[in-house]
Amino acid sequence: MEKALQTLIKDYQDLNSSTIAEIDYTPSPLEFSRFVGQNRPLVIRGQGQREQTPALEKWSNAYLVEKVQEKVAIAVSPEGNADSIVNDEIFVEPATVELSMQDFLSKLDRPQPSPPLSNPTADPVYYLQSQNGNLGGEYEALLRDVGAEGPSFAREVFAQDPDACNLWIGDQRSVTSLHKDPYENIYLVIRGSKTFTLLPPAEFYCLHEQIYPHATYNFTPPSTFSITSTTPSLTLPWIPVDPHSPDLARYPRFAHARPIELTLQKGDMLYLPALWFHRVAQDVGDSPASAQGVEGEKQRATIAVNWWYDMDMSSPLWSFCSFLRKATLALDGRVEDEEAAEGSVGSP
Amino acid sequence: MEKALQTLIKDYQDLNSSTIAEIDYTPSPLEFSRFVGQNRPLVIRGQGQREQTPALEKWSNAYLVEKVQEKVAIAVSPEGNADSIVNDEIFVEPATVELSMQDFLSKLDRPQPSPPLSNPTADPVYYLQSQNGNLGGEYEALLRDVGAEGPSFAREVFAQDPDACNLWIGDQRSVTSLHKDPYENIYLVIRGSKTFTLLPPAEFYCLHEQIYPHATYNFTPPSTFSITSTTPSLTLPWIPVDPHSPDLARYPRFAHARPIELTLQKGDMLYLPALWFHRVAQDVGDSPASAQGVEGEKQRATIAVNWWYDMDMSSPLWSFCSFLRKATLALDGRVEDEEAAEGSVGSP
Repeated sequence: MEKALQTLIKDYQDLNSSTIAEIDYTPSPLEFSRFVGQNRPLVIRGQGQREQTPALEKWSNAYLVEKVQEKVAIAVSPEGNADSIVNDEIFVEPATVELSMQDFLSKLDRPQPSPPLSNPTADPVYYLQSQNGNLGGEYEALLRDVGAEGPSFAREVFAQDPDACNLWIGDQRSVTSLHKDPYENIYLVIRGSKTFTLLPPAEFYCLHEQIYPHATYNFTPPSTFSITSTTPSLTLPWIPVDPHSPDLARYPRFAHARPIELTLQKGDMLYLPALWFHRVAQDVGDSPASAQGVEGEKQRATIAVNWWYDMDMSSPLWSFCSFLRKATLALDGRVEDEEAAEGSVGSP
Repeated sequence: MEKALQTLIKDYQDLNSSTIAEIDYTPSPLEFSRFVGQNRPLVIRGQGQREQTPALEKWSNAYLVEKVQEKVAIAVSPEGNADSIVNDEIFVEPATVELSMQDFLSKLDRPQPSPPLSNPTADPVYYLQSQNGNLGGEYEALLRDVGAEGPSFAREVFAQDPDACNLWIGDQRSVTSLHKDPYENIYLVIRGSKTFTLLPPAEFYCLHEQIYPHATYNFTPPSTFSITSTTPSLTLPWIPVDPHSPDLARYPRFAHARPIELTLQKGDMLYLPALWFHRVAQDVGDSPASAQGVEGEKQRATIAVNWWYDMDMSSPLWSFCSFLRKATLALDGRVEDEEAAEGSVGSP
C-alpha cells in the first residue's frame, strides 16, 4: 500500500505541471470550468483592476477606521502562529482580543522584524482572520467595496452565490499553517502580497497528518502568552510539516511532495480548488499598494478577501480523497472512525 | 483496507443519484462542462434529431449497401459474446470474417431467438464492432451522414476534435461485456435501441477483476466454433461479472455495486464519462426506427455511432482510479507491475 500511495503521487506529478497556470484576462466561464473540473489552481493577474473592485483604491487605513466603528475580534499569538502545531505536540488556537480598527491597524504599523516570521522583539502578532463570513457580518460596511457575489465567471461555473466572503488583515509575521478547506475558493489581494504554498489532494500521504490535543493561547497584555488545553480534552488531526521549510528528518514522506509556491500582488486573484492544501504567508513591504501609499499615511498591512463556494461533494474527488485519507491512516495503524468517537473536531 | 474500499463506494453512492440525468434540449457548453467535471453521465433525448443528423433518415439497409461497396470486417461469435470471459476461465476475442454489407445485413435479418441472449438455433452472431475509428476508415462513405466532429457542445468542452468515430451494427444477440475506456464518449443511436448498464469508477472493487488467458474464436461456416489460446501465451485483466444478472455467490463484492440501467432510442445521445464501466446490449425490435421501417424493407439491425475524445489524464480522476485499482488488487495479493511484466495487455 505504501508503494501504491507513492505511485499515486508520482502519477499525478508526472501528468501535471509543476507550476500554476497564470492568465491576465477575464476567463470565460467555460475556460474557468476546465480548471474547476480538473481541480487545478489558476492565477488571474490584475483581475481586481479589471473587475474595478472599489476596495483596491478605497481601503486606506483612514477609510477602514471610518467605516468600521465597532470593536472587532482580532486573533493574537506570540509569533503569528495562529491555528498551528506548537512545540511539535499541540494544536493551539490564537487568543482573541477586541480592538478598535484604529488600534488594530496601529499594531500592524510598527517596524517589522527581519527576517520575516521571527519575532525577536516579542511583540504579540495580531491578525484579523475570523474567516466566518465576516464581510457579511462585522465588516458589512466594507462588503460593497468588494461585492458579496465574487467574480461573475466563478458564480456562473459554481452555479451558486458564495457561501461566505471573508476579510483578512495582517502583516508579514502571520502565517496560516498548511490545511485544506472543503470549499472552492477565490482570493483577491487588496494591499500587500500573499504567498501561497500549495499541494494537491493527491499528496496527502506526504503530510504526516497526526492527532494532536487542542488548546488555546491565553494572552495577558502587553506580551505574555500561556497555553491552556481545552477541557474536556479534545483532539484533532492536523498537519505538522511546514512545506516552506520542511524538516525531512522528522517528516520523511514530505520528500515525495512537490510544493508549488506563488505570490499574489495587489489586484491578483487566485482560484484555489477545493481540498488543495495551502500555507499562506504575506508581506506588507514590497507590494505596489504599499509603495503607492494612500493618502500619505503609513500603510503597513496586508489585506485580502476571499469568497468560499460550496464544493460539489458529489464529484468523485470528494469520495476519493476520503478514501485516500483512510488508506494513509491505515498505514499508520489509525482508524478514522475511532478517532471521531474520541471527540475529534475534523480534519485540517 | 477492505472496509475503506466499501466506504468509498458507499460515500459515492450516498452523494450521487441512483439515476442518470436526462435532458431534452441541447446543453450549453457550460452546462455540459459540469457533467464532464463531475464525471457523471448525461442522456440527451432526441439530440440526433435536433442536430439534424442525416443518418437518422438515410441509413436504410439499401443505402448502407450502396455506400459500402468493399467487403468489411465483421466479428462473429457463437452467442454474441465478443470480447468476454467464456466458461469463467478464458477471455475470448471474436473471429473476424470478411463480408459484403449486403451479406452482413442479411444475417441480422433472420428471425431473432427469444429471449434475447440465448441462441438455441446455433446461428453464429455477427457484429460490426471494429471500434478502430472505422467511420474514418472503411466506412468513410458514411461519415458525412453523422459528422466527424461530434456535437459542438462536446467539442467546445473537450477543446479538441474526436480521436475516433466508430460505427456499430448488430442485433439483440450481441452484448458488449463490462469494461471501461480511457476516453470521453458520446454515443448516438441511429436505429433500434441500446441498453447500457453503468457503474462509476468508484465501484471497481465490486467487479472482481481477474487475470485471464487470452484466446480467439476460430469460425468454420456455417456454425462451428473452436477456441484457440494465443501463443505465445498472453494474459489480461478482465471483469467476469455480468452486471445485468450478477452471480452473487461467485462474485459477492458485487452486492456493494449499484448498477444503473438506461435505454437509448433512435436519436438519443449519451455522454458516457471516461473510466465508467459499461455493459452494452441492444435491441432491433421495438424501436421507432424499426417500427417506421425505411423503404418497406426488413430493418432488423441496431445501429449506433460514437465519438471518442481523449480524456484529460491530468485530472485527479485518472491518478485516483489507478490508485484505487492498485489498492483493490493488493487486497487479492496481486501486484500490477508483476502482471505487466508477464505480458498483460492492459486493463478492461
